[in-house]
Amino acid sequence: MRFATPLPLQSGVEMHDYTLVYETYGTLNAARSNAVLVCHALNASHHVAGSYDENDPKSVGWWDNMVGPGKALDTDRFFVIGINNLGSCFGSTGPMHANPATGKPYGAAFPVVTVEDWVHAQARLADALGIAQFAAVMGGSLGGMQALAWSTMYPARLRHCIVIASTAKLSAQNIAFNDVARQAILTDPDYHGGDFYAHGVVPKNGLRVARMVGHITYLSDDDMAEKFGRELRTGKYQFDFGIDFEIESYLRYQGDKFSEYFDANTYLLITKALDYFDPAREFDGDLTKALANSQAQFLLASFTTDWRFAPACSQKIVQALVNNKRRVCYAEIDAPHGHDAFLLDDTRYMNVVRAYYERVWLETMETMEAGAL
Amino acid sequence: MRFATPLPLQSGVEMHDYTLVYETYGTLNAARSNAVLVCHALNASHHVAGSYDENDPKSVGWWDNMVGPGKALDTDRFFVIGINNLGSCFGSTGPMHANPATGKPYGAAFPVVTVEDWVHAQARLADALGIAQFAAVMGGSLGGMQALAWSTMYPARLRHCIVIASTAKLSAQNIAFNDVARQAILTDPDYHGGDFYAHGVVPKNGLRVARMVGHITYLSDDDMAEKFGRELRTGKYQFDFGIDFEIESYLRYQGDKFSEYFDANTYLLITKALDYFDPAREFDGDLTKALANSQAQFLLASFTTDWRFAPACSQKIVQALVNNKRRVCYAEIDAPHGHDAFLLDDTRYMNVVRAYYERVWLETMETMEAGAL
Repeated sequence: MRFATPLPLQSGVEMHDYTLVYETYGTLNAARSNAVLVCHALNASHHVAGSYDENDPKSVGWWDNMVGPGKALDTDRFFVIGINNLGSCFGSTGPMHANPATGKPYGAAFPVVTVEDWVHAQARLADALGIAQFAAVMGGSLGGMQALAWSTMYPARLRHCIVIASTAKLSAQNIAFNDVARQAILTDPDYHGGDFYAHGVVPKNGLRVARMVGHITYLSDDDMAEKFGRELRTGKYQFDFGIDFEIESYLRYQGDKFSEYFDANTYLLITKALDYFDPAREFDGDLTKALANSQAQFLLASFTTDWRFAPACSQKIVQALVNNKRRVCYAEIDAPHGHDAFLLDDTRYMNVVRAYYERVWLETMETMEAGAL
Repeated sequence: MRFATPLPLQSGVEMHDYTLVYETYGTLNAARSNAVLVCHALNASHHVAGSYDENDPKSVGWWDNMVGPGKALDTDRFFVIGINNLGSCFGSTGPMHANPATGKPYGAAFPVVTVEDWVHAQARLADALGIAQFAAVMGGSLGGMQALAWSTMYPARLRHCIVIASTAKLSAQNIAFNDVARQAILTDPDYHGGDFYAHGVVPKNGLRVARMVGHITYLSDDDMAEKFGRELRTGKYQFDFGIDFEIESYLRYQGDKFSEYFDANTYLLITKALDYFDPAREFDGDLTKALANSQAQFLLASFTTDWRFAPACSQKIVQALVNNKRRVCYAEIDAPHGHDAFLLDDTRYMNVVRAYYERVWLETMETMEAGAL
């Protein structure tokens, strides 16, 4: 969907003439009360569920284990919307698109966007779709930050807020890992100051290293030990700098794959949005005050082995909500897969979300009946 | 010291005509029984203690807080030796030196060296210095691996083995971080397949990213939060990819500094030596069997917030030694500084080492008296 009205961004810049791509699943009811917005994290998109091509496993939506008919977020009940965020590289306006001011790709001139900017853009799309209030806004990791931001930026526009494996702010260590990734990209000669499109190249080496660093932080130490340990590819040391260990093979493969489809400028933008998110910042670091005007009910979930956004990060949000007397469910799920667990098919995790959506559904039905009376 | 006899390496290659630089502190006694070998870690050298230039704080030895007159390792009592390892970039033969076979710098052709290779080379230097048995061999991190290897490779040549903040093998996550660092260097166009010397350049960007990644793993999350938190350099977001947070400024500075003095090929070699160290490997992973022929007494120390080589790594070594009925002291020191703690001046830590060396000294004196009788 194309938006002609400029979007004022937190940086002070205005975004002119932009497009947001989105996907929907299920049917919006007559009361327009069963819509759920699913916000994506770093490298995902509007393609949340379903498959474009049954023969291509890569075309399956990134949260297809969570969203679909009969699934935890049941598209037989809810009208689910996935939106690709501004600055991303999966269809919505991003750094690879033409800057209307110059006619050339934005490149590094694409404005730095924040979680709050994305939420404003999502709200405009909701307006255009005629959705005044979401049954729920939901996301994991960076997606969870967007859900949390919705709860205070548009408190009346969501009845439930579901924040999974997320945090109210990045730690110094989180920022440090992001900055290493950015430096790998920015100093790759093929980055060309962000204008690599014009040079017909891609800063593949930088993106590859960025992804390798990121990937380490998504997995738990234990899970890596379990899956790879010190397994050697050929059973013996090679005494060179090729591949000795299986973990090297795996990580390099992940880095290679990522560098083939992901945009380097998008990577910079999205890590910056992560770093900047800090709703308590305007309240002298007081998260309770920052969340005071939220009205939604909340579900928070974290995973025991997630060392990127550890359970303590979710607990701080829960505490701030409880301080505000909000209704909050919190699940700390014992799962071995680190931060990545939020994308995986863990029975306990899925059951928690499923049970929560049962309640959201019952309330949605009641609202409809009340409205019908 | 120059060595003309070829050194057979674990890879099968022989090292011809190499030099080892070393420094000594204190005086070797007549019985030659008070020598202590201090092994260095990744980016350190033979310059363990003292200062080359009192006006230049950078010229202070890397363990000067530990080693010196009246210090925990007291050079008024012990004859301390620091050796720069083969492949390093501080004077001993390394990749930047001429390969006798070609007359050109070794570059990537410098053989991959292991902890065990270094220990053999150190033993030859000890031979040359007339030291049949060390009072102690000591090291932290990668230096601790060398001390541990001494205990099984030359069991009769050390009375005490001091292993600090180390591990008997790297985890998959440790290897993953090392491989990211190596990939950053190897894919830097200025690396030129290891022959950057001939091109008059240095793979500065790769080394910089490598060091930034490494540095994050040396610090604890808490310590980073304490020192930097989310402090902004100018008090507000810049909305660009310059420096926003103090942690970015710090890490980039560390990366820049490192890339100006450290050799890229050395970085590759040393991380590989770390990855390969695994004395239990030849014993089906049984560390107890791997350490069975050790004869020394041991001191192990770890630091609570070290997530690179966590206390559990030291505990596994302690358990294997106890299984072998070796005499072991173990100190787990509550320190906030992560892996870097082993280089820092922590009172409890220094007191543990000091107390241990008191015992080593008393035993050394007894040995001398017994010898005199």
